[in-house]
Amino acid sequence: MKAKIGILTVSDRASAGIYEDLSGKAIIETLGAYLSCEWESVYEVIPDEQVLIEEALKDMADEQKCSLIVTTGGTGPALRDVTPEATEAVCEKMMPGFGELMRQVSLKYVPTAILSRQTAGIRGKSLIINLPGKPKSIRECLDAAFPAVPYCIDLLEGPFLTCHEEVIKPFRPKA
Amino acid sequence: MKAKIGILTVSDRASAGIYEDLSGKAIIETLGAYLSCEWESVYEVIPDEQVLIEEALKDMADEQKCSLIVTTGGTGPALRDVTPEATEAVCEKMMPGFGELMRQVSLKYVPTAILSRQTAGIRGKSLIINLPGKPKSIRECLDAAFPAVPYCIDLLEGPFLTCHEEVIKPFRPKA
Amino acid sequence: MKAKIGILTVSDRASAGIYEDLSGKAIIETLGAYLSCEWESVYEVIPDEQVLIEEALKDMADEQKCSLIVTTGGTGPALRDVTPEATEAVCEKMMPGFGELMRQVSLKYVPTAILSRQTAGIRGKSLIINLPGKPKSIRECLDAAFPAVPYCIDLLEGPFLTCHEEVIKPFRPKA
Repeated sequence: MKAKIGILTVSDRASAGIYEDLSGKAIIETLGAYLSCEWESVYEVIPDEQVLIEEALKDMADEQKCSLIVTTGGTGPALRDVTPEATEAVCEKMMPGFGELMRQVSLKYVPTAILSRQTAGIRGKSLIINLPGKPKSIRECLDAAFPAVPYCIDLLEGPFLTCHEEVIKPFRPKA
Repeated sequence: MKAKIGILTVSDRASAGIYEDLSGKAIIETLGAYLSCEWESVYEVIPDEQVLIEEALKDMADEQKCSLIVTTGGTGPALRDVTPEATEAVCEKMMPGFGELMRQVSLKYVPTAILSRQTAGIRGKSLIINLPGKPKSIRECLDAAFPAVPYCIDLLEGPFLTCHEEVIKPFRPKA
Repeated sequence: MKAKIGILTVSDRASAGIYEDLSGKAIIETLGAYLSCEWESVYEVIPDEQVLIEEALKDMADEQKCSLIVTTGGTGPALRDVTPEATEAVCEKMMPGFGELMRQVSLKYVPTAILSRQTAGIRGKSLIINLPGKPKSIRECLDAAFPAVPYCIDLLEGPFLTCHEEVIKPFRPKA
């Protein structure tokens, strides 16, 4: 089974073409550096509208059958930031450990890491993870959280992800 | 007042007799090593069914008057893992600090610790804590979290728990 | 724009005059030591009643236009402790990073830090943060969390808070 990964950039300005979506690009590059198995990306850029985010997540999970969906943007405290709310609305299970770890990692760099409301959850057989908006933070967060992702996808009966282990080491506990 | 502690093993396979419940056993042994006061256990093994978990938790809290209820199993991301959802459904108050600390402790050993969705909460005068499924992780988590348990039970007007302080040191802040 | 900060002490005993509200005092003193800009406080002491807490928070946010509201008290596991529930009920957005960080900081001093259910969230343009009940813990928590507060209030389009940087260093990421 070829892995399918959704990358959802949530940004009013990137979706309006005001600036280039460097964050989505950074995610695709990072995943490309991590994964040694075959995979394809489903990529979309949308504005910070809760209904649109929910629809995109549902489409990537239910129709496109993405095993992993990562979002970037919309996790801060501002009025238009609603990505965590949209994520929670479409997930059956929440995974608080991802947000906790990513905030802890970012906190080593900036005290404003606590303003990030990133979360993660599961819809059907898809793991959805909110990443920060800035390319540098995206990499820091993925480096910390990704080692747990392949095993999570195993438990969701998805494709067996393999990694370039000199770049990132996935961990699978022995039964 | 003699302390009553509920131990609830949530596992399709253990409840079907496919394998022995080593996790429940590990909890009883650990609590036996910790506690120097008199206590009795109420022990049950049930499958990963949310309704059954909720009923067992309610029975242990409301009927059996357990001051502390610890669960093991069902906290992962798999479809059948619903222990945190059942816990949240029966609790009036959630205690996020327990899950945060236990994930942080487990993270020292395995990167997949972030996949655990363990939580804790209060129903009436009972403190309910989700523990991981594996005996080794159970002990690691209890060693970290248990020092706060006796004082929590004091605040819930339960029995005064005393411990073998060379094994575990409960902490009670001065008023 | 002059900053307005709400300080809400939630305590049955302090509100009944049984003892002096040292916690509210500690908050006002700490903020006074931090802030170099002009600010005024809106201060109230109320009992541990969820409805009253919600009303006070709404009044401070919507009518008094406080950019920041800090509460003290009512975050423990006891029956009367309902400050986090009241906070969540009036907020549109939750900010889990504050509670996580504050518990982590307090955990360096006392293992019972995990019993604190402190949270934070946003109502309209107001950031609401639950602090612990004890003056010593209040300062420890504020020292850790406050550096992120001025930038958060910038994002909520509130007043530009400046600090005595030899006491506390606010952090504002570059765009």
